[in-house]
Parts: sequence; C-alpha cells; structure tokens
Amino acid sequence: MSRKLVVMLPHLSSVHQNQILAAAQAHGFEACFFDSAEAALSSVADAEIIFGQAPELARHAPRLQWLCSPFAGVDRFTQPGAFLSPDAVLTNSSGAYGVTIAEHIVMVALEMMRRQTEYNEIVSRRDWTRNLPVRSIKNSRITLLGTGDIGWEAAIRLRAFSPASIIGVNRSGKNPGPMFDQVFAIDRLDDLLPQTDLLILSLPGTPETTHIMNEKRLALLPRDAFLINVGRGNAVDERALEALLRSGYMAGAALDVFQQEPLPQDSSLWTCPRLLITPHVAGNMTLPYTVDRIIALFMEDFENYCAGRPLLRQVDLKKGY
Amino acid sequence: MSRKLVVMLPHLSSVHQNQILAAAQAHGFEACFFDSAEAALSSVADAEIIFGQAPELARHAPRLQWLCSPFAGVDRFTQPGAFLSPDAVLTNSSGAYGVTIAEHIVMVALEMMRRQTEYNEIVSRRDWTRNLPVRSIKNSRITLLGTGDIGWEAAIRLRAFSPASIIGVNRSGKNPGPMFDQVFAIDRLDDLLPQTDLLILSLPGTPETTHIMNEKRLALLPRDAFLINVGRGNAVDERALEALLRSGYMAGAALDVFQQEPLPQDSSLWTCPRLLITPHVAGNMTLPYTVDRIIALFMEDFENYCAGRPLLRQVDLKKGY
Repeated sequence: MSRKLVVMLPHLSSVHQNQILAAAQAHGFEACFFDSAEAALSSVADAEIIFGQAPELARHAPRLQWLCSPFAGVDRFTQPGAFLSPDAVLTNSSGAYGVTIAEHIVMVALEMMRRQTEYNEIVSRRDWTRNLPVRSIKNSRITLLGTGDIGWEAAIRLRAFSPASIIGVNRSGKNPGPMFDQVFAIDRLDDLLPQTDLLILSLPGTPETTHIMNEKRLALLPRDAFLINVGRGNAVDERALEALLRSGYMAGAALDVFQQEPLPQDSSLWTCPRLLITPHVAGNMTLPYTVDRIIALFMEDFENYCAGRPLLRQVDLKKGY
Repeated sequence: MSRKLVVMLPHLSSVHQNQILAAAQAHGFEACFFDSAEAALSSVADAEIIFGQAPELARHAPRLQWLCSPFAGVDRFTQPGAFLSPDAVLTNSSGAYGVTIAEHIVMVALEMMRRQTEYNEIVSRRDWTRNLPVRSIKNSRITLLGTGDIGWEAAIRLRAFSPASIIGVNRSGKNPGPMFDQVFAIDRLDDLLPQTDLLILSLPGTPETTHIMNEKRLALLPRDAFLINVGRGNAVDERALEALLRSGYMAGAALDVFQQEPLPQDSSLWTCPRLLITPHVAGNMTLPYTVDRIIALFMEDFENYCAGRPLLRQVDLKKGY
C-alpha cells in the first residue's frame, strides 16, 4: 500500500500542484488534492501527511504522522484532542507571512498617522479640506511585541523610515539581529509601554498571550499612541481598547484580528472612532508570493521528512507556536 | 532705516517665531510676522526679504532682494512679472518635504496594491469578505520620474521592501546615490515604461513637464501598472489616465495633485474607479517635522544671505526649479 499525502489548499495553481506531485512521486507517495475540507474528509483515514489547515481533518486521520499547516498561527491545533493520531507532528508555515504582514503594518501605521480615513471621507464628499494635523514614522518610538518573522520583516521596513527607536519584546529577550535597537524579555513590557508611540503586536494565540494588552497595560501607553495588532485577537482586551479610543486618549488602533471572527454584526467596534478595521487580511494567501513561500517551505520539510531529518518548523504543542 | 524681513507663515509656533526673531535681530533686521497675505500686504513695500508663499506679496515688494518660499514647487513664481523688484532672488524649501511625501508614496502604493479602498468599503458594511487578490512592493519594478529630495527619500523607504528594481529618471541621467539601481536621462523614458509596475512622479511644474505622461506614454506602461503623482498636476494627461483606469487597463493611480486645484466639483475624476484621490496633502505643513525643516532651511540661507554667500536653494527662474 502506498503512502498518502493529502493536500487541502484552495486555489492552488497547477504549477504548485505539479511541484508537489513530482516530489511526492519521487518518494513513493500518492498525492491527493482537495479544495475543501468536506471533500478531503473521506480521504484522510489512511493519510500519513496532511498539508492544509482544516482542523476537522486532523480529528479524522488515525494514521497521521505529520500535519503541515499553511498558516503561521496554529492555535486551533494546540487544544487537547486536536489530533486523532497519537504520533502526529505539527508544523506551521511561519516564515511565509512576514513580507505581506509587514507591508500591512507599514500601510496601516501610515494611514493612521496621516489621517487617511478622514481624508478618504473628505474626498468622498468632494471636499478639499487639507488642514488635518498629521504624524510621521520618522522620530516615532516603535515597540514590536513579537520579534519572529513578522516582527523582523516589519522592523526591516520601519527602519527605513528613520524612527527614533525600534524596540523588540519577546519571551527570551534574545535579539534576533541588527534591525532592533534593543530587545527585552516580556517581563520588562510595563517599563517599555510609556515610551512607545507605536505598539505593534504579532504574537501567537496562546494562554500566555491572552489579554497581554489588558486595561492596565493599555493605560501605560502615552496619550496619543497608536496600536496595531496582526497576530491573534486574544492579545488585546478589546473593551479596554475601545474605551481608550472613544475617550480620545489613544490616537488610533488598527486591528486585523479579533477575539471573535468574523467580527459580530452587533459589535460596537464597527463604529469605534480612530479604529481601522481590516477583516483578517494582513497575511492573506491572495498574495501569490505568500503562496509561493508556503509551498517552498512545505517542500523543504517534505524532503526533511522523507530523509528522516527533523522538521524545521515543528510546533511545540505545549507552547503553542 | 532698518532692514526688513516679512514672514508670512500661518500657524507658526512661538518657538519658531523666536528663533527667526533672534537671528533677524542679530543681523540688524526688523522681523514682522503675518498669518495671511492680506495682513502682510501693507508691510511689504520696504521689505528686503520675504519668507512666505503668497505670490501677491512678490508683486507688491519693489525693494525685495530675496523671497524664500516655504514650498518645494514654485511654479507660481516663475511666470514673467511675478516679481516687482528686478533684483529679487527666489529660493524654495526643497529638502523639507521628502520625508513626508515619501511616507505618502509608500502609503498609497500599499493601499492600491493591497486593495485597501475596497476593504474599507467591505468593512463599512460590516462584511467579512477576504478574498481580494493583492499585490506587493516586493519584486515590483519601480520607476521614479524625478530623483530629487522626494524621489530620493521615497527610494530609501521603497528599497526596504525588496522591490525587483528601483530606476530613477531625471534630466541629466546623473545617479544621486546608491538607492537607485540605475538612473537614466529623460529621453530614455519610453524604453523604461514598459518595464514599470509602479511609476512615481515627483516633478516640478514646468513647461517641459506638462503632460510628460501623455496618452501615448501612459499606454506604454504594462497592463496592471500603478501610477502615483505627488509633484504637480500638469505632468499627467488626466483624461488619458482616467480612460485607462475606467477601462481596467491600469491597476490603479493615486493622485495628490491635479491640473486644477481644488479638483472641480463636477470633475469626473471623483468617481473614477481605481483612482485614489488625496487633496494635495502629501507634502502638508501640518506635519511638525516638515515645519521644523522649513524653518531650519530658511535659517541656514538667512545666515548665507547676511554673510554675502550664495543661497543654497536658489531657483533657476528659467528652468523653474
């Protein structure tokens, strides 16, 4: 019986499909492609490898050895019982999203600082008002909470705008490289927030990160600070953030992720002033470059898997990333 | 009789005012501050220096030796008869706007590539559509038409996004530095346009630049290219651009400047699809950093003037910049 690779990625190009197919065949794998979890479900009972997101597949694959998620955030796989197979190893596609999410970060930072939402409204009524006070990344103090692929790629780009400082914060306090002026361990966060004009969150969704920006910490930011969240919605106490935005204490926030997604129709966040909402699109697979990277990262680890080498992006199921 | 410096800059801070006052007094100048041209008009008859924009002041100052414009574009001063005084020298504030206009350029480039206008509409109806195909600065071929302060600062920032190439185009073909992969003289423009994904115009308003992007040249851009104009509205044939946007040939354009400003109420550009309009705010003085720079540049040339040295930002009235 041949070994089986189930690929469940919507909108996969034929180039990518053939790339995966060739590698699978070279290693004696049968590769099956699906564009919905429902369609794939009947095929996972004897799957050795799944390359795709749908958590229901993991719960129906008793012989699964490896699941490669095309996403960077894998919080939906880290709950107990997520895998039927006791041997399953999880990898993510961390490293595929930094480029596109960093572009999102710079875009929304500039949109907030340059009052672009208000200028859009002005233009929509054919007005020519030009006197809104604006701000600049130049000379701003930036704190990146999360210094992984996303924080790193964001720092590269933000550096070119000559900010006053780029400070990183992570679990270890280890500095991943010269793009950060300094990197501190998370226990120093309270000291850093009062010196932050622009706070950027790119944290995985874990119990430890839940409401890491709670009411008390949000209030440690100076008046007129900006906040961007592109990691997971659990990191920010949305009620506390909304109160600070509505009161005019904070200059702005850009949220791409939310505690509940889609954001409920009756959420008061939809009408919150100074809040720039995007529907979880910062790290969207609708950018071809991102899909290229996801496939390339999988192919690399597929070779590792077949050669019996360790997988490069294995998730620590206890830590959650 | 003391020598007279007339300063006509709205919203000047007291810090800036005192800075200018101290320098003026040190050199035996009387400094008068006004925040409107009307108010300043009665005071310019014996002015030796004017620091301000209003063209009507230049037409009423017979003894004027030097006019320093706080703007980079001085097309309103280069027509015959702009100066009553035959001895008047004109300087601009080129070098004060690069930072803020470069931030505008990156912002609108990303907004167009990431379909932000459409995502704003989606969010405004509380929808959660996420599947719009997006593009990236990464691997894009960028052509900067104009390599002065604005083009240079834009190139610094765009470089950090890893574009495929950054090509500059200017009159001389001289490369101002390592931020450009190559710089070509303007007569090569037609060869460069077909290899341009993102065209950025930061040209002064002169007879030579009028409709430099005419119908024929716009059509040389590949399908799905983007255009940004932050220089002067005369550079683009708006009718031809609108036709290409309405036909869907071009992916997008972001215009901050127009042939007629304010853009007339009945202009069809207001409703043109894929066109991001801003009301000439890319280089707005509502950014404090920009005002700091304008004052610093004036102070530098004021010292030069008083010492009889050449002024650093003197405009060639024939060339127009």
